[in-house]
Amino acid sequence: MNKLRLLDRIGHPGDLKTLNLHQLNQLAEEIREELVVTVSRNGGHLAPNLGVVELTLALHLVFDSPRDQIVWDVGHQSYVHKLLTGRGPEFGTLRQYQGLSGFPKPEESVHDIFATGHSSTSISAALGLALARDLQKKDYYVLAVIGDGALTGGMAFEALNHAGHLQTKLIVILNDNEMSIANNVGALSRYLNRLRTEPFYFRSKEEVEYLLRRIPKIGSRVLQAVDRFKDAVKYLVVPGMFFEELGFTYLGPIDGHNLSVLREILQMAKQVEGPVLIHLITKKGKGYGPAERNPDKFHGIGPFDIPTGQPRPGSGKPSYTQIFGQTLIQQAEKDDRILAITAAMSGGTGLEEFARRFPQRFFDVGIAEQHAVTLAAGLAAQGFRPVVALYSTFLQRAYDQVLHDVCMQKLPVTLAIDRAGLVGEDGATHQGVFDLSFLRPIPHLTIMAPKDENELQHCLETAFQLEGPVAVRYPRGSGQGVLLDRERYTLPLGKGELVRDGQDLLILALGPMVYVALEVADTLQEQGINTAVINPRFIKPLDTELIGQYTRKLHRLVTLEEHCLSGGFGSAVLETLPRMHKHENREVPLEVLNLGLPDAFIEHGSTERLREVYGLNTSGVLEAIKQRWPKLFEGKVRMAQPESGGRGTFLSRIPRAVGINQR
Amino acid sequence: MNKLRLLDRIGHPGDLKTLNLHQLNQLAEEIREELVVTVSRNGGHLAPNLGVVELTLALHLVFDSPRDQIVWDVGHQSYVHKLLTGRGPEFGTLRQYQGLSGFPKPEESVHDIFATGHSSTSISAALGLALARDLQKKDYYVLAVIGDGALTGGMAFEALNHAGHLQTKLIVILNDNEMSIANNVGALSRYLNRLRTEPFYFRSKEEVEYLLRRIPKIGSRVLQAVDRFKDAVKYLVVPGMFFEELGFTYLGPIDGHNLSVLREILQMAKQVEGPVLIHLITKKGKGYGPAERNPDKFHGIGPFDIPTGQPRPGSGKPSYTQIFGQTLIQQAEKDDRILAITAAMSGGTGLEEFARRFPQRFFDVGIAEQHAVTLAAGLAAQGFRPVVALYSTFLQRAYDQVLHDVCMQKLPVTLAIDRAGLVGEDGATHQGVFDLSFLRPIPHLTIMAPKDENELQHCLETAFQLEGPVAVRYPRGSGQGVLLDRERYTLPLGKGELVRDGQDLLILALGPMVYVALEVADTLQEQGINTAVINPRFIKPLDTELIGQYTRKLHRLVTLEEHCLSGGFGSAVLETLPRMHKHENREVPLEVLNLGLPDAFIEHGSTERLREVYGLNTSGVLEAIKQRWPKLFEGKVRMAQPESGGRGTFLSRIPRAVGINQR
Repeated sequence: MNKLRLLDRIGHPGDLKTLNLHQLNQLAEEIREELVVTVSRNGGHLAPNLGVVELTLALHLVFDSPRDQIVWDVGHQSYVHKLLTGRGPEFGTLRQYQGLSGFPKPEESVHDIFATGHSSTSISAALGLALARDLQKKDYYVLAVIGDGALTGGMAFEALNHAGHLQTKLIVILNDNEMSIANNVGALSRYLNRLRTEPFYFRSKEEVEYLLRRIPKIGSRVLQAVDRFKDAVKYLVVPGMFFEELGFTYLGPIDGHNLSVLREILQMAKQVEGPVLIHLITKKGKGYGPAERNPDKFHGIGPFDIPTGQPRPGSGKPSYTQIFGQTLIQQAEKDDRILAITAAMSGGTGLEEFARRFPQRFFDVGIAEQHAVTLAAGLAAQGFRPVVALYSTFLQRAYDQVLHDVCMQKLPVTLAIDRAGLVGEDGATHQGVFDLSFLRPIPHLTIMAPKDENELQHCLETAFQLEGPVAVRYPRGSGQGVLLDRERYTLPLGKGELVRDGQDLLILALGPMVYVALEVADTLQEQGINTAVINPRFIKPLDTELIGQYTRKLHRLVTLEEHCLSGGFGSAVLETLPRMHKHENREVPLEVLNLGLPDAFIEHGSTERLREVYGLNTSGVLEAIKQRWPKLFEGKVRMAQPESGGRGTFLSRIPRAVGINQR
Repeated sequence: MNKLRLLDRIGHPGDLKTLNLHQLNQLAEEIREELVVTVSRNGGHLAPNLGVVELTLALHLVFDSPRDQIVWDVGHQSYVHKLLTGRGPEFGTLRQYQGLSGFPKPEESVHDIFATGHSSTSISAALGLALARDLQKKDYYVLAVIGDGALTGGMAFEALNHAGHLQTKLIVILNDNEMSIANNVGALSRYLNRLRTEPFYFRSKEEVEYLLRRIPKIGSRVLQAVDRFKDAVKYLVVPGMFFEELGFTYLGPIDGHNLSVLREILQMAKQVEGPVLIHLITKKGKGYGPAERNPDKFHGIGPFDIPTGQPRPGSGKPSYTQIFGQTLIQQAEKDDRILAITAAMSGGTGLEEFARRFPQRFFDVGIAEQHAVTLAAGLAAQGFRPVVALYSTFLQRAYDQVLHDVCMQKLPVTLAIDRAGLVGEDGATHQGVFDLSFLRPIPHLTIMAPKDENELQHCLETAFQLEGPVAVRYPRGSGQGVLLDRERYTLPLGKGELVRDGQDLLILALGPMVYVALEVADTLQEQGINTAVINPRFIKPLDTELIGQYTRKLHRLVTLEEHCLSGGFGSAVLETLPRMHKHENREVPLEVLNLGLPDAFIEHGSTERLREVYGLNTSGVLEAIKQRWPKLFEGKVRMAQPESGGRGTFLSRIPRAVGINQR
């Protein structure tokens, strides 16, 4: 890397103020190079950051962070901000375990004023900061930087509505890159597009007033009785009446890659009373060819090759997401009641091909999870079988809608919950580790977790056979690489499968944790400990018959899940035990070990590393079992065992065969 | 009641079509009388229904329900609809156990096309119904009736944005009564107010086009180069450009109490292509003096006296809500960091006096729970101590915001969760029985449940002493009538209190269930069974020390909560036991009985009745204990006991003294 970079001289935003325009443009180049190089290694949100290089420079030139406060909506576009606020030296650790986060983190820097991760929160947070400033009679600036995609989230509108009402000083920067993660949808998007094509720049309210004063006679001549004439003329020359109606002064649209223009408009915004919205036009992926040409692919990307933009080869195994998308197409071919809904995530949820094949049966609602779920409920009320495909973490946005609009009415909506469990590098705001806790208490909902991609197919088949709401949770990334059954079948409702029999210990393992449990069982077997493994398949209803059959005869139970322990799968099992064992007079109390994620936000890092840290890989689970029942291992260690085999009653290990015996 | 009522002849909406205008107006009178009489007996949402009498008549005259589908936003204004769709004879059972629901219920009638209860869902649901119609190539009408208050909920905007984009035929009726539950807030409200005062009626797009054709020269003379002139002139004569920008045809504003005008505009809406928004002006409480004068009080009301409008006398005990409001004022007087936020519920959450006393420190954000919580996070990030007062059921709307924006950043926001537990007559959509399940897994959050209104004061005091986020849950309605300590104090974090000692059985009772547990313990004592009662006070962190001390020596444990069992308080206790008893070699297994609400939506009815049905009153709990441990009662029944006393080691029963020993 170039040793003489300007970037290396920027330890603080104040250092920018010593640079001339030529140097700033050079710095912008260096930043882009740094972004491409680091993200090509670590993966991350490349295209959004390439789009805000000039904006971020202008913000730090015109405003005085951290005194002036900048809230980054979603926050995945904060890399440039991190580079300019003293975090350049650590930038190589981006998204790695204990390295820099890919999102703003107040713990990381005083310049990260508010943590973000999910869309559409910035205006609410910034309004809170602005009201705090007013109450404390201080006079700094508060800014929210929000994309056109995030603006479709209803919460952003709630905040605009409140801010426009209060009329406190607040600067909202609308970073309009004509798409959110996928192509933008919605009437507002079309409206912004119309604004974009208008030849008006810099029409502040003041300029308009000036204009109005110059054409007084026409007003009186046209429709004298109409008071609204002035408003109408304003509409004629001020774009952005939509925002003006909400009480904001609208400035723009502006070229978001022209540093001089940006500085000028930000200075202007400082002068305006009350809330201001600055409409910038930027290009996602700006400055790196492959990202400019394919901004969607480079929105969030894994490691890639810089010259070609090609992703580094993966595991070669199909992902759960792919199997979901593929299965849904096969099902939709046979059943025209099946529809698919996504909230600006058609790529991430594997629905792109579905959208091409069935454009009439596919709905991308924009970043609007609440609406997505209730829309599905409306469609289901008329006999359709909509599937709402969301990431586990984003489903948190539609909790009330799942509870009321879908489940209370027992409507047959399928929630396809992708990215359930640890998601890795995106970190705390994206881990899908709460869904079972918030879904379990919902009456009428069936909840499934397939152990692998083959079982995922059958879970989806089962979902469409059931008459009520169903949630299917599956993880991010590659499947187990198992063979896929050609025929999908319906799993018996609420029935788990005994994957391996044993007498000393029972492991109830959720989803792909079944594979970890089988490895643990193998290792324990070598030590003479006989382990039964059950794949519950259904978290709700839970197979109390099968589980009870084992917990009555064994007295050591391990539950294993990639989910928080509080209210999760292990908790569901514990809730069931008192009922199952009600009339039991046990000789030996049942001893339980619940393994899962602790009561903490799980930070970023590779999923392998996180599983190691939280003891959810094979060695971690083995260690926990040893600590819990040390006596079990006494005298049993290293019993002579034939190298190949000697396992406990081994029902099935090769996933191909697994499960079929349960039909 | 008058035997010759027209109302009694309406068995089906079609019957309306036989009536002339005079008769329809007479019917409107009869409906108003029926509403006032029934609600004066059963309680309910009076003012909203009085406001939609003519609208509902017009809808059923012009449209053909259930073929045409009407979705009622929130749904508390559906009483008139119920009266007109065959439910007149049962109307006297409104909101009573197993009687008519106060909200639309598809189980109740084919005319209730979609269940509602929470605000702002109707446009999403109606859009789903409309898209289903299009896919099925049918041609009925779909309508959403939404209030101006509900329109501030972000979800409504998400749906408007999507509907405007899709351009399918959909009729949205904006029932603008210039307030939601309390006075309306927000820029949109101000905008609607401006529309209201404009003298434009019936300016459909077609009329405007006609107008435009008549004034062509002026256009060219003013600013010939500007393409947008036509749009501008439209703005001049068409009110509602805000909605037009979103792709809707705007019709209105219209007098919502003029049946002829209503019929005319609804007919007109049928003709318009694509989505239409009809803006009606109505008067909440219309036709009943006390409700017209005080629509806020008559929004939702208990039984009252018809001539005066005075509520029937209550228990005389102050409510939890009152104690909350009063305590917060006392605290705010001493600590100017304390702020209060409500989402259009200042009356319901007891904040009206606070708002009067501290107008600068009070924020009503409209029906916008998501924004409310993140706004609080922004304020807390700057050192304030905001309290967000919401009903338990509405907190479901802000789950992601509590998780991410408040708790992930450990911000000191207090969630005052009113109406936690059974709420009674409002039924399934309003029961506050999920909050513990969805809050418990959230890291950094402290969760408290006071046993009575006196302890509520101390919980609030404790909340402000803690440095992180806190949730305090308390029930609807009257407190226990205990004396209030003059001085508030800080409860030790995570410490429960032993309310009564005993050797045979331990009851862990959450919140006011402590009082039920004490009554149960008294009765059991008479039978020679010695019961310990613990008030945990904190659900998180749970007092594992105190609980463990008892569960190690006793072997019968009852948990008692007014919350669903799945993931609730009992579940929290179960999760803790394996850890607490890890190194225990018990001789006798611990037997657990978890009492709470089952895995079902809890319907409407008085809270007393519901507690009886679900076994959560004293006799229900006693019965469950007898069933669980019949042997405990054998031979012990009716042991001679002195009439007055003879209780187990009685630490404290009079709440006045309770808890102090724990400090």
